[in-house]
Amino acid sequence: MSDLQALAARTYAALVHYPVYDRRGEVVTTAVTNLDIHDIARSTRTYGLAGYYLVTPIQLQQDMIGRILGHWQDGPGKAVHPDRAEALDRVKVMPSLAQMRADIAARHGGVACETTATAAKQRGDNAVKTVGYAAWQGAATASAAPQLVLFGTGWGLTTELLGQCDRILLPIQGESDYNHLSVRSAVAVTLDRLFADRAGDA
Amino acid sequence: MSDLQALAARTYAALVHYPVYDRRGEVVTTAVTNLDIHDIARSTRTYGLAGYYLVTPIQLQQDMIGRILGHWQDGPGKAVHPDRAEALDRVKVMPSLAQMRADIAARHGGVACETTATAAKQRGDNAVKTVGYAAWQGAATASAAPQLVLFGTGWGLTTELLGQCDRILLPIQGESDYNHLSVRSAVAVTLDRLFADRAGDA
Repeated sequence: MSDLQALAARTYAALVHYPVYDRRGEVVTTAVTNLDIHDIARSTRTYGLAGYYLVTPIQLQQDMIGRILGHWQDGPGKAVHPDRAEALDRVKVMPSLAQMRADIAARHGGVACETTATAAKQRGDNAVKTVGYAAWQGAATASAAPQLVLFGTGWGLTTELLGQCDRILLPIQGESDYNHLSVRSAVAVTLDRLFADRAGDA
Repeated sequence: MSDLQALAARTYAALVHYPVYDRRGEVVTTAVTNLDIHDIARSTRTYGLAGYYLVTPIQLQQDMIGRILGHWQDGPGKAVHPDRAEALDRVKVMPSLAQMRADIAARHGGVACETTATAAKQRGDNAVKTVGYAAWQGAATASAAPQLVLFGTGWGLTTELLGQCDRILLPIQGESDYNHLSVRSAVAVTLDRLFADRAGDA
């Protein structure tokens, strides 16, 4: 197992539905979408992560996620798409960030996770904690703690939440001034930068 | 404008709904999905590509895409999400690969495009044309022709189609033996590897 594989195997991705901004800058809870469950589960599984959390405080949304997971894991979906059952095995829903962190610590002998935020734009007041992708790999490899990477829905994670994280990853920069990747795309690109096996890429 | 920006500005992405395999290995036409239009439009716009084509021979599907584009470009969607109107500006639907290639040539003074295929797994009989991401950048930069990168829906582009392409990109390899990225994620990762501005990433 390579260093990156070992690091991925103690890293969790989380899709945060609260607290995030809406387009007016108000703090809201966004709705969970079916494709966010599937696409991000498939990406986290492809890059060998330990797990994928969906965070929402709304009970009805938690129940809906449970029904979708059941359909693919034990229900009629499993026979048609066994690959999806495999991807969804590591998906868990949590009512809050605190409970997610407690769940990760319980899986790692009580060791608290280090938390990394992601954002589409660099925000000045948090510049001190911003790290590039190679720097993240170095810092996370040097630490023995489990790693948690947060992705925001809606118009992004709140500034208050960013301030509580250990690190913030550099925004993904394309070749234009337009940066509006879907969160599904942003997760895939981020995991590729952090964990891809590029050995065969001449 | 950097070399990569200039290259992106003459590169087109295409989501191919025919000819592709279904899970039994039969050649089929897949259905266009709404989120494939949006996510991939946003990714191609973020990385500065010249355009994004959806290829489907089915008239009803072409009409549906037209209605969706209209909703966001001129209809009620534009006021809520002006960013989406911007992303969808460069989306075009084509009934066939041949007509898409003719459309690209018409945009570039009659110069035919070079075509690159993508695939989730390396296929032995095409190994000779397979290139890594840096090698692709080199070859495409050395050429003056417009570049077209094909992404398959369903269970992937047909072997016959791969055989007609000029190049095939190395499959995306995570840190696991599981490789089932959604096509939306695969497009984002591929464009990031080919066109991202990583200058600020220490």
